[in-house]
Amino acid sequence: MTMLGAQTIPASTELAEKYEEVRALTERLAGPLSPEDQTVQSAPEVSPTKWHRAHTSWFFETFLLSATDPGYREFHPRFSYLFNSYYNTVGSQYPRSARGLISRPGLDEISEYRAHVDAAMRRLLERDPDAETLRLIELGLNHEQQHQELLLMDIKHVLSCNPLAPVYAALDTPGATSATRQEWVEHAGGFVDIGHDGGGFAYDNEQPRHQAWLHPFALADRPVTNGEWLEFIDSGGYQRPELWLSDGWATVQSEGWQAPLYWSRSGGEWEVFTLSGPRAVDPAEPVCHISYYEADAYARWAGARLPTEFEWEAFGARQPVGGNLLDPAVLHPRPSGHGQGPRQMFGDVWEWTGSAYLPYPGYQPPAGAIGEYNGKFMVNQHVLRGGSCVTPSDHMRASYRNFFPPSARWIFGGMRLARTL
Amino acid sequence: MTMLGAQTIPASTELAEKYEEVRALTERLAGPLSPEDQTVQSAPEVSPTKWHRAHTSWFFETFLLSATDPGYREFHPRFSYLFNSYYNTVGSQYPRSARGLISRPGLDEISEYRAHVDAAMRRLLERDPDAETLRLIELGLNHEQQHQELLLMDIKHVLSCNPLAPVYAALDTPGATSATRQEWVEHAGGFVDIGHDGGGFAYDNEQPRHQAWLHPFALADRPVTNGEWLEFIDSGGYQRPELWLSDGWATVQSEGWQAPLYWSRSGGEWEVFTLSGPRAVDPAEPVCHISYYEADAYARWAGARLPTEFEWEAFGARQPVGGNLLDPAVLHPRPSGHGQGPRQMFGDVWEWTGSAYLPYPGYQPPAGAIGEYNGKFMVNQHVLRGGSCVTPSDHMRASYRNFFPPSARWIFGGMRLARTL
Amino acid sequence: MTMLGAQTIPASTELAEKYEEVRALTERLAGPLSPEDQTVQSAPEVSPTKWHRAHTSWFFETFLLSATDPGYREFHPRFSYLFNSYYNTVGSQYPRSARGLISRPGLDEISEYRAHVDAAMRRLLERDPDAETLRLIELGLNHEQQHQELLLMDIKHVLSCNPLAPVYAALDTPGATSATRQEWVEHAGGFVDIGHDGGGFAYDNEQPRHQAWLHPFALADRPVTNGEWLEFIDSGGYQRPELWLSDGWATVQSEGWQAPLYWSRSGGEWEVFTLSGPRAVDPAEPVCHISYYEADAYARWAGARLPTEFEWEAFGARQPVGGNLLDPAVLHPRPSGHGQGPRQMFGDVWEWTGSAYLPYPGYQPPAGAIGEYNGKFMVNQHVLRGGSCVTPSDHMRASYRNFFPPSARWIFGGMRLARTL
Amino acid sequence: MTMLGAQTIPASTELAEKYEEVRALTERLAGPLSPEDQTVQSAPEVSPTKWHRAHTSWFFETFLLSATDPGYREFHPRFSYLFNSYYNTVGSQYPRSARGLISRPGLDEISEYRAHVDAAMRRLLERDPDAETLRLIELGLNHEQQHQELLLMDIKHVLSCNPLAPVYAALDTPGATSATRQEWVEHAGGFVDIGHDGGGFAYDNEQPRHQAWLHPFALADRPVTNGEWLEFIDSGGYQRPELWLSDGWATVQSEGWQAPLYWSRSGGEWEVFTLSGPRAVDPAEPVCHISYYEADAYARWAGARLPTEFEWEAFGARQPVGGNLLDPAVLHPRPSGHGQGPRQMFGDVWEWTGSAYLPYPGYQPPAGAIGEYNGKFMVNQHVLRGGSCVTPSDHMRASYRNFFPPSARWIFGGMRLARTL
Repeated sequence: MTMLGAQTIPASTELAEKYEEVRALTERLAGPLSPEDQTVQSAPEVSPTKWHRAHTSWFFETFLLSATDPGYREFHPRFSYLFNSYYNTVGSQYPRSARGLISRPGLDEISEYRAHVDAAMRRLLERDPDAETLRLIELGLNHEQQHQELLLMDIKHVLSCNPLAPVYAALDTPGATSATRQEWVEHAGGFVDIGHDGGGFAYDNEQPRHQAWLHPFALADRPVTNGEWLEFIDSGGYQRPELWLSDGWATVQSEGWQAPLYWSRSGGEWEVFTLSGPRAVDPAEPVCHISYYEADAYARWAGARLPTEFEWEAFGARQPVGGNLLDPAVLHPRPSGHGQGPRQMFGDVWEWTGSAYLPYPGYQPPAGAIGEYNGKFMVNQHVLRGGSCVTPSDHMRASYRNFFPPSARWIFGGMRLARTL
Repeated sequence: MTMLGAQTIPASTELAEKYEEVRALTERLAGPLSPEDQTVQSAPEVSPTKWHRAHTSWFFETFLLSATDPGYREFHPRFSYLFNSYYNTVGSQYPRSARGLISRPGLDEISEYRAHVDAAMRRLLERDPDAETLRLIELGLNHEQQHQELLLMDIKHVLSCNPLAPVYAALDTPGATSATRQEWVEHAGGFVDIGHDGGGFAYDNEQPRHQAWLHPFALADRPVTNGEWLEFIDSGGYQRPELWLSDGWATVQSEGWQAPLYWSRSGGEWEVFTLSGPRAVDPAEPVCHISYYEADAYARWAGARLPTEFEWEAFGARQPVGGNLLDPAVLHPRPSGHGQGPRQMFGDVWEWTGSAYLPYPGYQPPAGAIGEYNGKFMVNQHVLRGGSCVTPSDHMRASYRNFFPPSARWIFGGMRLARTL
Repeated sequence: MTMLGAQTIPASTELAEKYEEVRALTERLAGPLSPEDQTVQSAPEVSPTKWHRAHTSWFFETFLLSATDPGYREFHPRFSYLFNSYYNTVGSQYPRSARGLISRPGLDEISEYRAHVDAAMRRLLERDPDAETLRLIELGLNHEQQHQELLLMDIKHVLSCNPLAPVYAALDTPGATSATRQEWVEHAGGFVDIGHDGGGFAYDNEQPRHQAWLHPFALADRPVTNGEWLEFIDSGGYQRPELWLSDGWATVQSEGWQAPLYWSRSGGEWEVFTLSGPRAVDPAEPVCHISYYEADAYARWAGARLPTEFEWEAFGARQPVGGNLLDPAVLHPRPSGHGQGPRQMFGDVWEWTGSAYLPYPGYQPPAGAIGEYNGKFMVNQHVLRGGSCVTPSDHMRASYRNFFPPSARWIFGGMRLARTL
Repeated sequence: MTMLGAQTIPASTELAEKYEEVRALTERLAGPLSPEDQTVQSAPEVSPTKWHRAHTSWFFETFLLSATDPGYREFHPRFSYLFNSYYNTVGSQYPRSARGLISRPGLDEISEYRAHVDAAMRRLLERDPDAETLRLIELGLNHEQQHQELLLMDIKHVLSCNPLAPVYAALDTPGATSATRQEWVEHAGGFVDIGHDGGGFAYDNEQPRHQAWLHPFALADRPVTNGEWLEFIDSGGYQRPELWLSDGWATVQSEGWQAPLYWSRSGGEWEVFTLSGPRAVDPAEPVCHISYYEADAYARWAGARLPTEFEWEAFGARQPVGGNLLDPAVLHPRPSGHGQGPRQMFGDVWEWTGSAYLPYPGYQPPAGAIGEYNGKFMVNQHVLRGGSCVTPSDHMRASYRNFFPPSARWIFGGMRLARTL
């Protein structure tokens, strides 16, 4: 059995090309950010930009270069401690919550580190590596794509803490539009195939592919919008305990939540902080930066519920992947258009599901340090599906399972309603 | 549709008899405890004995007496604030974590309160109440039975904090025995009926009854024992991060866990604190007072996993309810005997399952305040099945879903292994 | 040099009489309190009544009985751990913040413990002990008197946490009166004698007696009243940062202080919780239960300052000790009368001084465990002078230095103004 | 009465020169630091370098430029919020503990801000300002000098958190030397003049000058050395509760202190982190980076005590100011030389005194926002005297009172013994 499951083995030349693209995109995303911007950590779960740039390089250095090439020279002897995120099998780690204290290495040295790793990776790729190595490189690139999304989520949080409301980059800001009325799309239930089908890359947690049994249900044809969320706010949604899970209500009170993250009132109007600075809340856009607790409360208020991840996948697997995924000129959810639903299944906002993040029947993490990738987080989290406007487009697929604690709001998380028929 | 689902309506005379039995058992369980014992709260989630005695009375006063009888006179105008646990719909509550600050009402006044409520409840029961009222009384009795278990769990925790290691009561202490070797019992998978079948009382969260699809699996024929747990400890189980969920490992380190709750080393030997004081750990007994994190880590160490709640119920529903459930002369798990398995499915220790506590398909909580009973806790908890040696025996059934956060150790929680075939 | 300084040696017969009086008063003060009342701890610095009763007995057992009589049998082998407050030299201690978790020993056993110690102490006193022993007994009695005040302070705090506002005892409640206008009493400055003059008992921290140099100043002829405090509140005193020390302002905001401890608004009127339950705030009474931060802010608002402890003593030493000290029928500050000032220097309320609690020149704590009595607290505290309505009258003297952290409000602490001439 | 007391009015031309020097030194001290270095905040009380550079400019902008020149244009409308430290009278402040979240303004904009303020200040100085304005400018320069020391203290802390142990700058590192034996210098006591004598600048807290009465005492002729501190460690100083104040012992345990801040063991040898990186602990150097708690415990261990601030000043006022004060090529304490004592009264290390930081008799803070400078911190702090190797030399004088909480260790704080004769 291979380490990373039964998926196709990627071709060496394609991977080499992909390697260049992925590594370049990370640098492009960091491009608008100053040395000061790239150093700040605004919460324990929010990492500095330069840490993301270094950690993704550490991944290749640790699992590919040091592991396969006895002649490889580490860039710096302490980086394996400094830039290990959570791999206990690899060794101890610099504390996550203190990443913002590390002023050095500075940006220049991080760039040298990336170049050093890139040069060695190019040599490795030219040596026609074996299938296991190719799979690990593919994993490393998918890992870096995840960190591209984190980089954007994190810098949005960092900049939002600054009363000067700084701008990451000027972005396309379409004029406000009007949302279509939400409709339901029905599903008859029965057996559905769940999990990755074996073509192309997938994480261990999308496997094994198996059958799940669904009861008849209906799914909303589009995500919940800001306009609908304003109705929820105006009807006292954040003040009514009966709408909330007990833990959710406790969080609303302790955190003082009154609206999604990044929303604020300015002179009676709701504003939202975006990667291009503050702008008016557009009622037609999907609501974004809500926690699971908020999504669950909204669904109860609306007389509906969240879909399970299997219900989501039953529809998602029928559609081509596409939509408003990571485009450096956009980086913000877009209003839904017209047409047959369910629409906006991919991109715009991750969709909270009612499913706790748990292993699929027969799930096995890979052996070794790489096995710490997904399995050890399978408690106290909920699954989100479909990707967002900061998810790289070739990183998305219908079986993709993202997961976060129910209080997390800095992800680009939204929701879509479901109901039992 | 009735408020509490489709189960049978209890007969008034039977309920009256049951009412006397349940109320008397609560008092019997509190019997060995002094006024000082009954006042202490040793953790935010641990309530004083006298609070349990009052709160269970408040439940009848609030949902039955005040709600149905305009002539009913409340025992004390502030008790509805003081002894409301978490029913926001009923009104605000005295803070849970401060219950140990309430020295008055004292024991005598609590006893008067119980007598006052009992007298009024007897009058109500004599008036041939309607079906809805009967169902609410039955709910109130089941609620009180839950608190009987909580009362015992909580006082065990309270007494364990005292360096004098006080005794709740002298209890049967059988001599140490030897455990049988664990065997596997197989299940072919397929559709199984899950949830309450409609005969007798059940909570809303056991409903609606529905079909679930199981993959073939095997279940251990008995719970994991202390002897096996000692092997886990001796093999470094509490020191090896690769065995643990990430949140579990963080908890092990922050809490300094090295053994189940109530275990301590005394001169090289492991002792366990029980309701009859400290005694030597018996290797043949089921391990008890472990968290979900520990159960999950042990399963990984053993090359197995926890069963899902559906897998548990597939076997549990085939057996009569019985075993070492609440017996005031025992109150401690007993070693497994011989015979066909799975054994000890009911009683001894609650069994952690791998299932997050979530609603069944089509679940609806009842309307009104009673709807706050179960549904609002459906996040961040895991399901336990089968009852324990402190669960009243007529409170148990195969479809019963208990639930606690994954770090909870003061419940009488143990585990049973499963594996995918 | 003796262990406890140069004060007079008490006579054995007088001490025996005093022993009976002091021990009896403790029991009398605990008399109105139920087992439940005596068990509760409402804050880390607030001890249960039964702990005070046991700890004061432990003091005699540890420093007198076990230390001097080889034949003495300890009442219980674990009490020396359970009831040691903070004497590291004696051994480790049960954690202070967990005293409320100890339900056993119960009240009966505590009473037996006191009787056991009393019997042994009587035997010791009959054996004509040496001077050192007599001094230690005297210290033990003064120690118990301190705990009599703590017992009353603490149970007031405990009962105040109960929304039922329970009554410790029905007490004399005089009708509201009107306060006299505050006048100043001047002092020319110069050298003053500070510290204990050697007659009768004193603590080490009142010694050595020495000269201090005072600049000319004036002292208010009475404490600040509730009526004056209401003006402070009404003029925005709790909302104006410029009146407060930086640490004080931070505390006002984090704690949400808007009035002295135990004050609350009820229908537009200010009420105060007392040991005889809630009553209307009497404008003529000295303000009580204010912190140093509040005292300092009030003084700044009033264009004055707090006196130093030396300034206080310069006046206090000229007066006989007397006034509204501990009287079990009162236990509440009384309005000032007429007559020459400064009045109410003793009793009613402890008076915060501007002096940090520091050693006198040449201060030496006694050797051994007894040396942990006063000296180790000489940082982060301020001195209060004069005793309060819960201070035993024969425990008070002009040189007495009480001390608490600047945020403490559960002491019966008030204030008197001073100004530099 | 003038706002800032009775000291001499500085001449406009001298001030203009001084202004250039002080502002240039700040920039020189920040010179070795990258944009990343200047952005990090490693503790709530540790500010980023660029914040110091901006805040010192904000001081001039707020109290001089905006206050006196109606035509002055603020550099940025939000800087008055962002760079106000704690002046409530001026307005609300960005939270101190979040200064490390502010990536923008970046270094370039901070430099522009400084240039903008400098240009306006030059114009102001050329306009022959009135005495009050001159005094405020002098205050602003002294304020900036304080922040020069803070800048160095803070960046040392920031860099120390980095496992790469980065170097601020290569500095003079003399070879290890041997310390002289400590001798005592006696003082007969009596009246001494305390406080600023009116020549040149002084803070309000050094005034009014007044007489204090001293008892005879002796002062050590040099500070306590690292070599002596190693003896304290080796004799179990950090493990013996009887040596410590109660709050100090609690801090030792909660923080795990085992040596001064920045000391660590490397292969059996003690190393210390300095602004030029780690080096071996030199036994002859004054011990540095100890808290008041440690200083107090050491003195008790040594059978001595800390001097009062008046005792210190009685000797300090007799000496010329000089020694190892801020020299950008040194920035580290130096071993004591030979010669008549007391030596090293100024420079090397701040010396903790036994005096709580309290107002002098008759103290009045200046009116207005400037009055928030010193007075509002007069609680929970102890006085340090004499300056350190990071204190600008023309900022020091014998009457200078520095103050910090007793747990503070990141200041360059050391100690000198005293004893009562």
